[in-house]
Amino acid sequence: MDPRFHGDDNLNMPKQIPIAIVGATGYTGIELVRLCLKHPNAEIVAVTSRQHAGQKIAGLFPFLAGQCDLTYEDLAIDQMAKRVEAVFLCLPHHESMEIAAGFRKKGTTVLDLSADFRLNNAATYEKWYGPHTQKGLLKEAVYGLPEFHREEIKKAKLVAVPGCYPTSIQLGLAPLLKKKLIETKGIICDSKSGTSGAGRTAKADSLFCEVHENFKAYKVGCHRHTPEMEQELSLLAGEKVTVLFAPHLLPIDRGIFSTIYCEPKSKTSTGDLIKLYQAFYKNEPFVKVLPEGTLPSTKNVRGTNFCHVSPLFDERTGKIVVLSAIDNLTKGASGQAVQCFNLIHGFPEETGLTNPGFVP
Amino acid sequence: MDPRFHGDDNLNMPKQIPIAIVGATGYTGIELVRLCLKHPNAEIVAVTSRQHAGQKIAGLFPFLAGQCDLTYEDLAIDQMAKRVEAVFLCLPHHESMEIAAGFRKKGTTVLDLSADFRLNNAATYEKWYGPHTQKGLLKEAVYGLPEFHREEIKKAKLVAVPGCYPTSIQLGLAPLLKKKLIETKGIICDSKSGTSGAGRTAKADSLFCEVHENFKAYKVGCHRHTPEMEQELSLLAGEKVTVLFAPHLLPIDRGIFSTIYCEPKSKTSTGDLIKLYQAFYKNEPFVKVLPEGTLPSTKNVRGTNFCHVSPLFDERTGKIVVLSAIDNLTKGASGQAVQCFNLIHGFPEETGLTNPGFVP
Amino acid sequence: MDPRFHGDDNLNMPKQIPIAIVGATGYTGIELVRLCLKHPNAEIVAVTSRQHAGQKIAGLFPFLAGQCDLTYEDLAIDQMAKRVEAVFLCLPHHESMEIAAGFRKKGTTVLDLSADFRLNNAATYEKWYGPHTQKGLLKEAVYGLPEFHREEIKKAKLVAVPGCYPTSIQLGLAPLLKKKLIETKGIICDSKSGTSGAGRTAKADSLFCEVHENFKAYKVGCHRHTPEMEQELSLLAGEKVTVLFAPHLLPIDRGIFSTIYCEPKSKTSTGDLIKLYQAFYKNEPFVKVLPEGTLPSTKNVRGTNFCHVSPLFDERTGKIVVLSAIDNLTKGASGQAVQCFNLIHGFPEETGLTNPGFVP
Amino acid sequence: MDPRFHGDDNLNMPKQIPIAIVGATGYTGIELVRLCLKHPNAEIVAVTSRQHAGQKIAGLFPFLAGQCDLTYEDLAIDQMAKRVEAVFLCLPHHESMEIAAGFRKKGTTVLDLSADFRLNNAATYEKWYGPHTQKGLLKEAVYGLPEFHREEIKKAKLVAVPGCYPTSIQLGLAPLLKKKLIETKGIICDSKSGTSGAGRTAKADSLFCEVHENFKAYKVGCHRHTPEMEQELSLLAGEKVTVLFAPHLLPIDRGIFSTIYCEPKSKTSTGDLIKLYQAFYKNEPFVKVLPEGTLPSTKNVRGTNFCHVSPLFDERTGKIVVLSAIDNLTKGASGQAVQCFNLIHGFPEETGLTNPGFVP
Repeated sequence: MDPRFHGDDNLNMPKQIPIAIVGATGYTGIELVRLCLKHPNAEIVAVTSRQHAGQKIAGLFPFLAGQCDLTYEDLAIDQMAKRVEAVFLCLPHHESMEIAAGFRKKGTTVLDLSADFRLNNAATYEKWYGPHTQKGLLKEAVYGLPEFHREEIKKAKLVAVPGCYPTSIQLGLAPLLKKKLIETKGIICDSKSGTSGAGRTAKADSLFCEVHENFKAYKVGCHRHTPEMEQELSLLAGEKVTVLFAPHLLPIDRGIFSTIYCEPKSKTSTGDLIKLYQAFYKNEPFVKVLPEGTLPSTKNVRGTNFCHVSPLFDERTGKIVVLSAIDNLTKGASGQAVQCFNLIHGFPEETGLTNPGFVP
Repeated sequence: MDPRFHGDDNLNMPKQIPIAIVGATGYTGIELVRLCLKHPNAEIVAVTSRQHAGQKIAGLFPFLAGQCDLTYEDLAIDQMAKRVEAVFLCLPHHESMEIAAGFRKKGTTVLDLSADFRLNNAATYEKWYGPHTQKGLLKEAVYGLPEFHREEIKKAKLVAVPGCYPTSIQLGLAPLLKKKLIETKGIICDSKSGTSGAGRTAKADSLFCEVHENFKAYKVGCHRHTPEMEQELSLLAGEKVTVLFAPHLLPIDRGIFSTIYCEPKSKTSTGDLIKLYQAFYKNEPFVKVLPEGTLPSTKNVRGTNFCHVSPLFDERTGKIVVLSAIDNLTKGASGQAVQCFNLIHGFPEETGLTNPGFVP
Repeated sequence: MDPRFHGDDNLNMPKQIPIAIVGATGYTGIELVRLCLKHPNAEIVAVTSRQHAGQKIAGLFPFLAGQCDLTYEDLAIDQMAKRVEAVFLCLPHHESMEIAAGFRKKGTTVLDLSADFRLNNAATYEKWYGPHTQKGLLKEAVYGLPEFHREEIKKAKLVAVPGCYPTSIQLGLAPLLKKKLIETKGIICDSKSGTSGAGRTAKADSLFCEVHENFKAYKVGCHRHTPEMEQELSLLAGEKVTVLFAPHLLPIDRGIFSTIYCEPKSKTSTGDLIKLYQAFYKNEPFVKVLPEGTLPSTKNVRGTNFCHVSPLFDERTGKIVVLSAIDNLTKGASGQAVQCFNLIHGFPEETGLTNPGFVP
Repeated sequence: MDPRFHGDDNLNMPKQIPIAIVGATGYTGIELVRLCLKHPNAEIVAVTSRQHAGQKIAGLFPFLAGQCDLTYEDLAIDQMAKRVEAVFLCLPHHESMEIAAGFRKKGTTVLDLSADFRLNNAATYEKWYGPHTQKGLLKEAVYGLPEFHREEIKKAKLVAVPGCYPTSIQLGLAPLLKKKLIETKGIICDSKSGTSGAGRTAKADSLFCEVHENFKAYKVGCHRHTPEMEQELSLLAGEKVTVLFAPHLLPIDRGIFSTIYCEPKSKTSTGDLIKLYQAFYKNEPFVKVLPEGTLPSTKNVRGTNFCHVSPLFDERTGKIVVLSAIDNLTKGASGQAVQCFNLIHGFPEETGLTNPGFVP
């Protein structure tokens, strides 16, 4: 319950951090609006859009009718930096880095949802994404996956919120890599993503009639999330990890499902793997290791910050299969950004993120 | 934010009403679990299922993993009546009336989501639904549409939660009927419902491959929600109203969209109609009259207790068209039940129901 | 079976009309390619696209891999007029009229799928669509709904292939209007269209994430197919007909479903209406009046040139409801164009159009 | 063109084989009806259904309205064996074997779409499926994948039509295994199937609301198609092949997409692999190896008997990835059965199977 809603003046009002959401017309931007609107410790003071400046956000997104009275404004960094303590950037790659730098100069905390600060190595970034104009900020940036970078995030001023695919795959593989139970070369990540991952930009490939009643692979072996995965998985493993990453497009709005295949160093069992995973994640509020016999599905995490994960051992081939499901817009983007925001500001990590989704 | 979640002992804990959800394996039952789980003034102490007694609810519905530790139990009215103050019945028609009577004998407040107590006239019920064995309870039952029966609901012990179609149509027509602006005979209600309206029972007609990439009409002119609509619309109008009700099946999970056609007694304009509707609903927390130029859509109310409504005047034919969208499982069933629960127990009417949905 | 496929030289080859499909990258264009590819009396000699000239059609549309070796070419009217006898124009409104005029000057038969020649009255066209630069051609143009203009189509050189919505509504209403059984003012047409009706142009409104799990109305009372409907329905009725047309967008690829409400001049019955419709359409190969108890659905006509239609009489309100389903790309556009082509060239009307669709 | 349709008496009528479709109410049964209805050399003389005997097939499946006048009959083997030359069995596993034996005793050619005769080894069958009561027929049965068993099929009297998953995987892997280019242990087959693969039986798991906007894995490592794959892949390789098979459920009607990961014995390139595949399949009418840069998708093969396949070499990890797409009801079941029927009866293999699908 959001105490602001009932206007109870006698309640001790919790601390409210003024925030801005930059690029609040895309799917991750609007998801941040949804989450922050009911966050007891965040107050959205600005949403920006170049194209829609001056328009009510509830006009463009009528699901907010009567819920949010904000008007889009054009971004003016200097002026906005005076009004907010933290800013969420929901901008395209390349575009984000300049804006992030502008806010950092003013001292504003930046949670960047683009890829611009995810790769530690500028050369790797430039190989996969093109020129980087803010290399100096790379060492300041913290990779925003709380499960593995919690302490650094607490102190961060610039958070690179992870990609959706890498989040699902890191949460799926971490226990095996940390415990050095699997071979680190040639891990196969067969991932399937909902169409919101392609963004709200009008593209023929994302049209309803192209996606509906269809399924396909794309960018097999050459998707730009590959170096991000390898960087972070290598950190977890303490040695260089390589992955073969094959993304596919699902005819659903939200959800990433990763099926990960790897070679155990020695024989194991599904029961033992589940125990290992449950122990590994026992203090994590957002990672749920499912009991034997239940497998993840995207609908069960839709609209939530949860990751459902199931490891299996295949007796017949001696391989391990890990299944991992998240909502690409929540745990794969905006929810994760809020989780980082909570850590930075000292709020309980799950604040504003505990609503279950809904089925159907 | 649910204060229970963070275990803050110093907070003044709000009053918690112990409740049971009977028949918590269907779509309206599980929607009640979702809503009540985060309701600050309700505590789910029991969920029942004949078939799944002894099983964890999170096993059957993994979206509740780590969120709800309840175990299904078989229904024992006497014993349960001692543990709860209110009970939500999510049972098939006919089956519900007996259970409701049992609970009423014990003094438990009953919120019945079936059709068993919606029709004041037992003969009408029997014509459309079959035998009624608890006619004595009909006069006690209150029709649970808060927008039009708020004061009675506050005092009710037995609430007949309205049907999904009738809710969307009553909210769409009420301002016109109350103000006596339209003819009351032959109003046309062309409604389209998501498939969750057909329930979670395995039926060939509800299979994915039958519904997906399909659209059809069914029970045109003979759907059992017709007498319920006419009863309540007549109450609003103060005279007998007849409707031609044509339901259709949509290949979506959730949502009812009603397109209502009626004859104004005199010429009007879209702008004037919108003003009339906005004034009529200005104090209603859950009815949003959209501004001119914006029309309702089911996705914008999905997962919420909101009704979006737009009236239009068609200059060319002189008719009024009203568009109304709700989520059939929330405002059309379980959310409405919670809204009634709040009224009965003196909580702010919107308690537990204020989360926006999400798009996409 | 297409005899060309097996290369049986001894068969008497049927006459092959050389045709071109102009604008063969949109959904109606590619549907024409699909239909004409297996048409025994049509030979596609050219497909055009400004943007994709020089590219293989099977590269852009891999469902044609190994089935069609054509390469897109840029349109050059004079040169193309020498190669083909008939041309199908799948172009946007306004753009089509100039191209049609160019081909008519060369004597080529034109089947135009745009709205440019559907309205007899240039002033009406200009009110709803904007300037018309080829008014002289309007009197030559024949409205291409074979069920009601068969003899004119046989002699036509310029066919205006009807809109998808008007086709579904005319086929639904014709028996009632022709027999003068209903009031002609204020007929209500509540239509629902699949998303392919919006075309293959990249627009945010047509993105998967906007349409999927959604349903909405649009352009209620002001859709541009309204004057076309009224023109043709008035012809059928022999007096002026007005309709209130309310289109809606369905989350399916293909299909138009119209629910039509009208006032009979006298009481009737569903059984009698069905008999009337069956008699009316008994010689029509593509209109199927369903038996009592079966209602149309879009999936049952998907991919076909059939229209399924069911009239009902509602005892309670005394109104008639007609349900009509077609595939908007086939009977609502390209299939209808082929049907006209068959008539013009003296082939049996159903040639190339007899494959059933598939379910699921 | 089906010459029967136009009633051209002067055409030499092609030979018509009388056939029956047993179990013509499920999705593979009705797909056979669709395909055989337009097959120039097959005449459907009977469709059977225990539950619907006496009903018109077009009543249950209105997409056949006006296209097919058959009435379901109860199965009587002796009597039916006198009327038909070939019978297609679309029955559940176990049930099919007895019926097949009955028809074989009468000399009828049997095309069995169940798993009952796919496994050469009765013990393997019994381990995965349960008791086999017709072991004597196993040696007579021919595995009906024409691409690899063409000559045996031509002489067969009992064809075991392959499973949908195994078809997609065999067509994907055959060139690599035949040429001994890959390791034969631990091949990973990550497959995704449309929901029609689960059949038309009413099951809660197949309900629209459970499948729509969802994606999940099931039976990972333990699906019953595994031994069938391994049997046939081993035949192709000339040595024992093991696969880790992970099936997933897609929210689409039709389509199987397999992403297959394997280890090449030596470095290769995508270009070379495509050349190899194109050479390998150059005479196959139904296998299309896509050009470099184009990848398979389920929608491009929907409703057709085609398999689209793309091999890729991943430089970074040294693995080969093969993508393969079919329609599970056509090439994965009923279309393949018709292809076998054509071979047995000496008709061109592609007879009745050459229509392209449609997009969207």
